[in-house]
Amino acid sequence: MEKIKGGVTAAGGFFAASAAAGIKYADRTDMAMIYSKAPCRAAGTFTTNVVKAAPVVWDREIVEKSEYVHAVVVNAGIANACTGEEGLSYCRKTADAASEQLGILKEEVLVASTGVIGVQLPMDKLVFGVKEMAGKLEASERAGREAALAIMTTDTHEKEAAVAFEAGGVKVTVGGMCKGSGMIHPNMCTMLSFLTTDLAISKELLQEALREDIKDTYNMVSVDGDTSTNDTVLLLANGTAKNPEITEKNADYQAFCKALRMVNTMLAKQMAGDGEGATALFEVKILGAETKEQARILSRSVVSSNLTKAAVYGHDANWGRILCAMGYSGAPFDPEKIDLFFESAAGRIQIMKEGVAVDYSEEAATEILSKPEVTAVADLKTGAYEATAWGCDLTYDYIKINADYRS
Amino acid sequence: MEKIKGGVTAAGGFFAASAAAGIKYADRTDMAMIYSKAPCRAAGTFTTNVVKAAPVVWDREIVEKSEYVHAVVVNAGIANACTGEEGLSYCRKTADAASEQLGILKEEVLVASTGVIGVQLPMDKLVFGVKEMAGKLEASERAGREAALAIMTTDTHEKEAAVAFEAGGVKVTVGGMCKGSGMIHPNMCTMLSFLTTDLAISKELLQEALREDIKDTYNMVSVDGDTSTNDTVLLLANGTAKNPEITEKNADYQAFCKALRMVNTMLAKQMAGDGEGATALFEVKILGAETKEQARILSRSVVSSNLTKAAVYGHDANWGRILCAMGYSGAPFDPEKIDLFFESAAGRIQIMKEGVAVDYSEEAATEILSKPEVTAVADLKTGAYEATAWGCDLTYDYIKINADYRS
Repeated sequence: MEKIKGGVTAAGGFFAASAAAGIKYADRTDMAMIYSKAPCRAAGTFTTNVVKAAPVVWDREIVEKSEYVHAVVVNAGIANACTGEEGLSYCRKTADAASEQLGILKEEVLVASTGVIGVQLPMDKLVFGVKEMAGKLEASERAGREAALAIMTTDTHEKEAAVAFEAGGVKVTVGGMCKGSGMIHPNMCTMLSFLTTDLAISKELLQEALREDIKDTYNMVSVDGDTSTNDTVLLLANGTAKNPEITEKNADYQAFCKALRMVNTMLAKQMAGDGEGATALFEVKILGAETKEQARILSRSVVSSNLTKAAVYGHDANWGRILCAMGYSGAPFDPEKIDLFFESAAGRIQIMKEGVAVDYSEEAATEILSKPEVTAVADLKTGAYEATAWGCDLTYDYIKINADYRS
Repeated sequence: MEKIKGGVTAAGGFFAASAAAGIKYADRTDMAMIYSKAPCRAAGTFTTNVVKAAPVVWDREIVEKSEYVHAVVVNAGIANACTGEEGLSYCRKTADAASEQLGILKEEVLVASTGVIGVQLPMDKLVFGVKEMAGKLEASERAGREAALAIMTTDTHEKEAAVAFEAGGVKVTVGGMCKGSGMIHPNMCTMLSFLTTDLAISKELLQEALREDIKDTYNMVSVDGDTSTNDTVLLLANGTAKNPEITEKNADYQAFCKALRMVNTMLAKQMAGDGEGATALFEVKILGAETKEQARILSRSVVSSNLTKAAVYGHDANWGRILCAMGYSGAPFDPEKIDLFFESAAGRIQIMKEGVAVDYSEEAATEILSKPEVTAVADLKTGAYEATAWGCDLTYDYIKINADYRS
């Protein structure tokens, strides 16, 4: 199991392309395509928001009903959410365009959108983009990176990750790209993530692996507490690695799950650290919990707290806010047992012992909190479960970006 | 039923005082006392945070067990939360000091604290403050206002309200003061609110009236989503209005509930509008809901959304964020039935009709959203229930205040 370079084109048989379709932005690409000539098993997880964007409605049906898929078409700039029947017809038209260009069925095309809510897509521009991308698909690392750049909205950099491992005696790769960076919150967020692997695996196990994995990766990320209408994670497996198809939870399945966890953890952390306006990745680890769920709830509550996030921005070891956020999380715990630490590249410092502040150096704490990756560790000392959540600090730039997003 | 001037000293028989005890701030008062010579029935509601500040532990016991109370002692600057046994002993010592100075039992003294978590109170300063306040108690409107000023932390102005009404043929008054303005969120927040009335009423009905009222007043306020360790609402009734004691839910009880609602709504709105860094009061009304709870959940979700609040700050009619926040609230509804409006002193404008954007003037919407009190109205058109929640915009100053609160 090793990290390798690349993203959606890292796995065998996957091609990517991007285009500047002029949907919203000038002077940049805003569409991406992923394509596999070999048919892919597809798995997906989607937003839990009652208001679901049209592409979410489209993709859920494809993932459920289509035996195979071949392509994903993504656009940035307009979310195609709150767009009614017209919006849904544009998913079909996008799939039609890809179907025609690539010689596949429209039921083999997944779509995804991110951007402003409530505006209709300019279909002529999308069709133009699909046509352009179909003509320049490449399996290169560069094409994967270009795709990762094209799907960004307020992201400041592209997000890719890939891992290679062995299954059934052959080398298999899992790679992916994702984008944030507002409306990022547990339960899938305008977060779009696209994962590819050359593994041969049954559709059922592919879906189960993804569904289990996101509980400890994407669903542990919070940038601003707003769960988007568009959140989508798609995972395509085209089997070109030629491993014996995984149809049961054997050692190969476990190896795949481990690789998936590595890729998704890397992507989740990149997304959190590049949250809107963020200057730091803020990681919260809960140790010693009685159940996994308790650990997840507590870590997510801290990482979602505006007050704590503002304190991280100020490099202020305001541990009271961490305790407070744990307290209102809804999960029970004993405040008088807790040990609390801050960690970063600058070191580790204990802040609380058994629920009471210890005599720590504010200067050392401030130095630790000034690094670009900061971790708070709370040990409940009541059990063996743990969980980690990722977020970012809350900054002036978050306000700046969101007070005037549509202009 | 009429609004009148004043706060905690508006009702008959209530005295107030304040002192500059030097607990944290220089050049300002930081302690307040409320006193009634006539014994008071006391009701209270407290934070639901698992981490409860020492004064919350103290007051809950007093409200439950003491037949009457006579005084409340409040300090700003230090919250006395996460302070262990030592912190609790300081509540007792504060009550002891008030007991000695006022000639009452220590079990007749309620205490409240607001400020930084995890720091012990300087008891010599508190005892000094109690002594000074006991010597200068006054029933004047000015003394009430001084008390409201003394309990402020990041508040920018004092918050008072009072209402007069008739019960049993006599004039009765309900008045109060409160403070915000960070860690303000549904389920009681470092919000402290102190209410006084000269009504004669049984302890049981006083508690019930308060418990019911906060569901639609304080618990509908959110400034930043952080539920504090210290939230406390105390309501004292000293019976000096000489109405026949209310012991059943008769017309007098209903009149009292109505007066309490008026006072608490006025205080809740002041608190929301003066949220940390706020430039506008943001009100969200949900109409046409199938149940009261559905309306409450939806309105609170919108008023708590960082993205929506940043849009209000930017005077941006970003209605997509409102729909999105309703969607992830956890309450079901039909997005395709919703009508959405913005209202303010500058007028009213329809933004959505049956789930789809209508052709509205962005200029008119921006003008409406530029006023200091802005209301979003969403009509679900599926029932007869409604609810209103109050919050504020999310601004640069919120970050500024909270990135460096302790310095």
